[in-house]
Amino acid sequence: MRAVFEDIKATRKVARINNFWRALATNPAHLESVWRHLKAVMQPGRLDMLTKEMIAVAVSATNGCAYCINSHIAAAQKLGMDNEMLGELMSVVGLFNMTNKLVEGYQVEPDVLPNTE
Amino acid sequence: MRAVFEDIKATRKVARINNFWRALATNPAHLESVWRHLKAVMQPGRLDMLTKEMIAVAVSATNGCAYCINSHIAAAQKLGMDNEMLGELMSVVGLFNMTNKLVEGYQVEPDVLPNTE
Amino acid sequence: MRAVFEDIKATRKVARINNFWRALATNPAHLESVWRHLKAVMQPGRLDMLTKEMIAVAVSATNGCAYCINSHIAAAQKLGMDNEMLGELMSVVGLFNMTNKLVEGYQVEPDVLPNTE
Amino acid sequence: MRAVFEDIKATRKVARINNFWRALATNPAHLESVWRHLKAVMQPGRLDMLTKEMIAVAVSATNGCAYCINSHIAAAQKLGMDNEMLGELMSVVGLFNMTNKLVEGYQVEPDVLPNTE
Amino acid sequence: MRAVFEDIKATRKVARINNFWRALATNPAHLESVWRHLKAVMQPGRLDMLTKEMIAVAVSATNGCAYCINSHIAAAQKLGMDNEMLGELMSVVGLFNMTNKLVEGYQVEPDVLPNTE
Amino acid sequence: MRAVFEDIKATRKVARINNFWRALATNPAHLESVWRHLKAVMQPGRLDMLTKEMIAVAVSATNGCAYCINSHIAAAQKLGMDNEMLGELMSVVGLFNMTNKLVEGYQVEPDVLPNTE
Repeated sequence: MRAVFEDIKATRKVARINNFWRALATNPAHLESVWRHLKAVMQPGRLDMLTKEMIAVAVSATNGCAYCINSHIAAAQKLGMDNEMLGELMSVVGLFNMTNKLVEGYQVEPDVLPNTE
Repeated sequence: MRAVFEDIKATRKVARINNFWRALATNPAHLESVWRHLKAVMQPGRLDMLTKEMIAVAVSATNGCAYCINSHIAAAQKLGMDNEMLGELMSVVGLFNMTNKLVEGYQVEPDVLPNTE
Repeated sequence: MRAVFEDIKATRKVARINNFWRALATNPAHLESVWRHLKAVMQPGRLDMLTKEMIAVAVSATNGCAYCINSHIAAAQKLGMDNEMLGELMSVVGLFNMTNKLVEGYQVEPDVLPNTE
Repeated sequence: MRAVFEDIKATRKVARINNFWRALATNPAHLESVWRHLKAVMQPGRLDMLTKEMIAVAVSATNGCAYCINSHIAAAQKLGMDNEMLGELMSVVGLFNMTNKLVEGYQVEPDVLPNTE
Repeated sequence: MRAVFEDIKATRKVARINNFWRALATNPAHLESVWRHLKAVMQPGRLDMLTKEMIAVAVSATNGCAYCINSHIAAAQKLGMDNEMLGELMSVVGLFNMTNKLVEGYQVEPDVLPNTE
Repeated sequence: MRAVFEDIKATRKVARINNFWRALATNPAHLESVWRHLKAVMQPGRLDMLTKEMIAVAVSATNGCAYCINSHIAAAQKLGMDNEMLGELMSVVGLFNMTNKLVEGYQVEPDVLPNTE
């Protein structure tokens, strides 16, 4: 557990371990495996880190997870997301949560050749 | 209704109206209002169209809406998303759906100074 | 199980037991308890049956349950819901799924004196 | 933004703008578009305003959005929903959230001729 | 209502009625029907009570219902769930919330002969 | 990717790789990381494998993921879950999806000393 906490601090260049990781320490093997998986996914690749954190905000808002929303907005802001970008992000999240439910409500049949919704 | 369909075709440069819009035509005033709102949100701004469509995929996968996932993946692919980018997008969506539920399950308390999850 | 099936047929004045109830018969005690609970809730009271079935559609569309959406739309139609009413119902369901997620995304603070969203 | 706020006050006959709309002001174009869409949907039609607000409560309870639940219950109460009606509304919301998940859990096959769930 | 409260106290051997049941008392007939259904389901059968309460935690964490999570964790702890078991439970809940969304995101086709995910 | 597929076959003693893992192969690094994480979580510990698979069914039914429900029910059946146990599992999943939404709908306040819901 201590080794994972040290790795989190070193990787993220932070002095304090967030409550999320402290909670996971209830199950140290799980803590280690989640951290390893998160480290594998959350590195710059074909998508940059800001895009990945904005996707995390979109997922968290759709799930309605308050801690997660706050935490990922903070992370995205650190990476350069300003209020205008946040406002656009939210507008997209809101819009497609609406259209998703309209699609379900009307039980829309697949398009032969889907273009865009 | 016809005017909205013409506008959709012209705006999107497509010959065929997707089943989503056809379903909405059950309520023509609603069709028009949703289209107007979608047009307002889905234009390039501080976030580019590809990022917006990838966020749409993230929302749709989190909601488990099959039609929506297919439609937004197709739209993102048209805008340049290749399989590698799709694979990264999915890895981020999967990861944060897991951490969202871990946060809820452990009822994680807010961080004094949130860094990142 | 047979007694419950007979009661469903008599109460609903239908000749065929829907697949939902057949599936529940996997656990006959559960079948009986769910049917008893449903009968207690789904009777006219301060809300009429059509309103109750439209609420059932709203819940089912929000959950994205295809069987449930189809079944409750059919039930509401039997009770008088026409296409115009369905269109309004869907517009309300779509709208508040959007605003729900915007509220979560922005982590909107409680109003001192809430009026309406 | 100011124009939208004035329109909200005038339309709703309220002196104070709710926190929901204040939060949306992060993105003024979005605020305007959401308000316009909400105004188009939330007017009396084939469904009356009380029914629409009760549907909003059903959607919000299903999504577990605390602010939204409080806000739409308050709105429905203003329009005449008393405690007995609220109690019936909740009983319907609870019931169909249960049956929705039973349908999914048992993967119930479509009925040839659906009657009611 | 009073009779139901007395039955809850007697059945559970508790001196205080939880806020959940107090809230349901808004609709006494509903209170009685929910309690009857819960009593029918929550008794030892082929699954023991601890397993049933852990399943309740899994459902509640997936739904993100704070009150429910706290209440079912407390109930499971009373029945013998220690921190290690809680940690394993959470790891399973987190994992399958991730894989569920990956399955949806990739729109995975049914296996001819499903083994395990 | 091939190494992961071989490990899946060897660990699970199956001849065929499920479509879930084939889909993940879109992103081989992700496939490997998800598999490693799943292997870490899905081993017997303080909870046995059958309990873990039943929790997986509960999560999947709550999320409404058809592929996942089928796959985890099949896995649980292999481990000894019969129809009676499935019926009890479903009854618990249904019940607490109902009470979760009633708790949200009524915005139930935390109990000072939670016993059980």
